[in-house]
Amino acid sequence: MHDFDLKLYLAEHKRMVDEALAESFPNPTGLEKKVLEAIRYSIFAGGKRLRPILCLAAAEVVGGSSHKVMPVACALEMIHTYSLIHDDLPAMDNDDFRRGQPTNHKVFGEAIAILAGDALVTEAFGLIARLPVKDGIDPERILQVIRLVVKAAGYRGMIGGQTIDLECENRTVSLATVEYMHVLKTGALISASLEAGAILGGGSPEQVALMTRYGHHLGLAFQITDDLLDIEGDAELMGKQPGSDAAKNKMTYPALLGVARSKEAAREHVEEALKALDSFDDKAEPLRAIARYLLGRKA
Amino acid sequence: MHDFDLKLYLAEHKRMVDEALAESFPNPTGLEKKVLEAIRYSIFAGGKRLRPILCLAAAEVVGGSSHKVMPVACALEMIHTYSLIHDDLPAMDNDDFRRGQPTNHKVFGEAIAILAGDALVTEAFGLIARLPVKDGIDPERILQVIRLVVKAAGYRGMIGGQTIDLECENRTVSLATVEYMHVLKTGALISASLEAGAILGGGSPEQVALMTRYGHHLGLAFQITDDLLDIEGDAELMGKQPGSDAAKNKMTYPALLGVARSKEAAREHVEEALKALDSFDDKAEPLRAIARYLLGRKA
Repeated sequence: MHDFDLKLYLAEHKRMVDEALAESFPNPTGLEKKVLEAIRYSIFAGGKRLRPILCLAAAEVVGGSSHKVMPVACALEMIHTYSLIHDDLPAMDNDDFRRGQPTNHKVFGEAIAILAGDALVTEAFGLIARLPVKDGIDPERILQVIRLVVKAAGYRGMIGGQTIDLECENRTVSLATVEYMHVLKTGALISASLEAGAILGGGSPEQVALMTRYGHHLGLAFQITDDLLDIEGDAELMGKQPGSDAAKNKMTYPALLGVARSKEAAREHVEEALKALDSFDDKAEPLRAIARYLLGRKA
Repeated sequence: MHDFDLKLYLAEHKRMVDEALAESFPNPTGLEKKVLEAIRYSIFAGGKRLRPILCLAAAEVVGGSSHKVMPVACALEMIHTYSLIHDDLPAMDNDDFRRGQPTNHKVFGEAIAILAGDALVTEAFGLIARLPVKDGIDPERILQVIRLVVKAAGYRGMIGGQTIDLECENRTVSLATVEYMHVLKTGALISASLEAGAILGGGSPEQVALMTRYGHHLGLAFQITDDLLDIEGDAELMGKQPGSDAAKNKMTYPALLGVARSKEAAREHVEEALKALDSFDDKAEPLRAIARYLLGRKA
């Protein structure tokens, strides 16, 4: 299946996710409409939908239906989006632009940006809890997914990682610390996306564990290639200027390891990710292609 | 049962909630400990635990066990606490003190305060999703509770109310708008506390609906007496200076109705709250006493 068309797969799945997200948010009416406008602004700001696509792909790999898993895929994108809105705030990374557009607080003000983030993380759990039990989804599996998403997004995951990132700014830290920070800050939610898809797709505990392992290595490869792009990337393709990490004294892989050894590390993590897929059949081809794609990443 | 000791009931239930909350947060270790320190600072800042106590009381009224409902009671207090941390931020109400203590961002900085709030709302849903299904709690009821808490805390509830509050600052608005804002901003979570307790306590749909109605009127009476305290209250008992609403041009009941008619409105809502309890036996005495207590509120 070496003629697998990743570009087409990503485009089709992104479109499905975008449609489902559009249905999740009513058109803003009433006095509270400002916060819904702010939510929609950031949700539809052109994200790649990596986390929801991984969630759908994991469900397909274990023989499940991506349609049934869609609300969880949307919830993961909502959590990712909330984290970007809050990370961009003046008190955090103080970014004025994201993907070439003004950040949420530049358009709606800080107060509404904080509330839009708060609303996104809250409603994300509502979306998971509305999974149709009557469609044959075991409610205990839904609760299990809520617990693992909380772990990945809370202080044992994404928020813990962001805390470490803040604590380490302008300080020299070890490679182990940087890796731990990234595993929490971005890796945990990426792994959770795959884990949730596999659980709701009906995967066995072994299959779920392999998806989590794939997600762990994919997340690290993603972060390392992200750091490399900030040095070598093309401003136009990325929608932002390279060099912003260095300007902010962020601890990155290339800063700690150099470019050549960082590329080697990315390759190793992609290989480990692919190994985790060894026991799966052709249905794992999208996940294999996504992992390989990271090595040639341009944006 | 007119010798019911409300003070003792509140003290005992507050102690139970405080103990359960203390068990919910591990002692901070590791690099991410700053955010856990900030969470513990605000969670243990001397709240009255109104929402968790109402949740426990509602479970008891319908014959359920308050012990089983405790994780949800704690989750409600976590959501309330996160809303206070974010509301106090400079971009929102810009408050330096709460209950006589420096606000979270004054102690930990804005970035950590934002993250502490984010972590609290996230972990709150994890706590509900960890309710012990093996203790005989129906997982579909747990999902129902998550959905109703999301509705009360999200843009259709608390966050919607806070958005309206921001939009109405320094503007003259109608009494209907102020009431709608309060129903969303504080009423929804108070109602949800009672509804969640009644559902998990095993209440019938009729009993759950009565608890929600009691909560609706209690929430409004609570808000009106809160506004009145800001005019007539004792600074020492409240731990804050009266007059802060007027200074911020907040739309309050006394500002719109005058003191005398606001007191009348509070009394009417307390009466409606008591009516919702008519069909319940002596187990509803704590809820009756809490409603009556609001009319003589000093802090």
